[in-house]
Amino acid sequence: MREVLARTAFQLFLERGFERTTVDDIVARAGVGRRSFFRYFPSKEDAVFPDHERCLADMTAFLAAVGDAEPVDAVCDAARLVLRMYSANPEFSVQRYRLTREVPGLRTYELSVVRRYEQTLAGYLRDRYGESGDGALRAEVIAASVVAAHNNGLRTWLRSGGEGDPEAAVDHALGLVRQVWGSAPAEGASPVAADGDVVVMVAAKGAPMWRVVQQIEAVIGQG
Amino acid sequence: MREVLARTAFQLFLERGFERTTVDDIVARAGVGRRSFFRYFPSKEDAVFPDHERCLADMTAFLAAVGDAEPVDAVCDAARLVLRMYSANPEFSVQRYRLTREVPGLRTYELSVVRRYEQTLAGYLRDRYGESGDGALRAEVIAASVVAAHNNGLRTWLRSGGEGDPEAAVDHALGLVRQVWGSAPAEGASPVAADGDVVVMVAAKGAPMWRVVQQIEAVIGQG
Repeated sequence: MREVLARTAFQLFLERGFERTTVDDIVARAGVGRRSFFRYFPSKEDAVFPDHERCLADMTAFLAAVGDAEPVDAVCDAARLVLRMYSANPEFSVQRYRLTREVPGLRTYELSVVRRYEQTLAGYLRDRYGESGDGALRAEVIAASVVAAHNNGLRTWLRSGGEGDPEAAVDHALGLVRQVWGSAPAEGASPVAADGDVVVMVAAKGAPMWRVVQQIEAVIGQG
Repeated sequence: MREVLARTAFQLFLERGFERTTVDDIVARAGVGRRSFFRYFPSKEDAVFPDHERCLADMTAFLAAVGDAEPVDAVCDAARLVLRMYSANPEFSVQRYRLTREVPGLRTYELSVVRRYEQTLAGYLRDRYGESGDGALRAEVIAASVVAAHNNGLRTWLRSGGEGDPEAAVDHALGLVRQVWGSAPAEGASPVAADGDVVVMVAAKGAPMWRVVQQIEAVIGQG
């Protein structure tokens, strides 16, 4: 019933526009009462994004179960759950992306959802980094970076009309975040390099930090 | 008139709550007609944040005039314009922060405003980095990082009730972003270090990137 209502609502939004479609229109076409609609969706906006609540719950469960993975990798993996929700249904995702661009109310709704994902990731990172020192600050900045990178990859794919490999676009974007914020040590390597390998790095004083990082990254092969 | 209306509106929001205050209540107390209110504010929410439009315009103008400053430093400086708007009126800012925490509609409004600041910063960085390669990706991730860091510092100050030095809190938070994303070369230094100084850095293979960056940062004294 929930899925039928979401599908019916979305069909009507495409046909008549979001603003001009009422909940009465939706339930009339679906052949149910208004109460059925509001049992599943608090608002018309929620019917456009029927899977985010489940995805947020999945993300929370994933992070609770992830164990002692490298924290930045853990939140990158958690963010990929969102991508997979979109890529599971490319046609719907692309149509919804176009609809959302046109309706300010849907854009605002989407911002609220994105913020909840970001807070879920930041909450996990705060627990991992601890509240002392810059733990909370680092958690919030990394969560925002991960969300921005993920959404850059996702949007690139949505804008292209769902062509190409969305996983590759998002992996590439998240790679930039992992590059500067940390990555899991290679399998079997301890943080002090069990095999004793070291990198000797020569950099000009005053070189922009991101260039230095890129150079190191190229040498030690992370990301 | 605009300022009187904003002040009257805010006083009523504090007295009666945001939801229970109507535009009619506001204009009645201010002694003007409804039209005057809507001439200055498209909605009740806008009256709670009367200075963001001006601040967004200031930010755009600042970035248009900033010249060839190091791009990450430029967006950090641009973000500080928002802080200064808040710190110019601590009591109002703290009261509004508390009100916003309680009213979902104001939180959503604030998210939209924050997004516009972020897009302003990202647009500037895209122009600086160019559209080719990862220019747009880097622009969006850095803009999100700057906004997250700025807001972390700002919120710390607002939560404390406006105690202490908000500039110091925000500078510290932005320092983390500048540390990983780049900073201006020291005065007079070219990107290849005019005085020939170099840093030799030894790091364990597999060390988390942020720790490597912290070490380098400590040595070359950026941030």
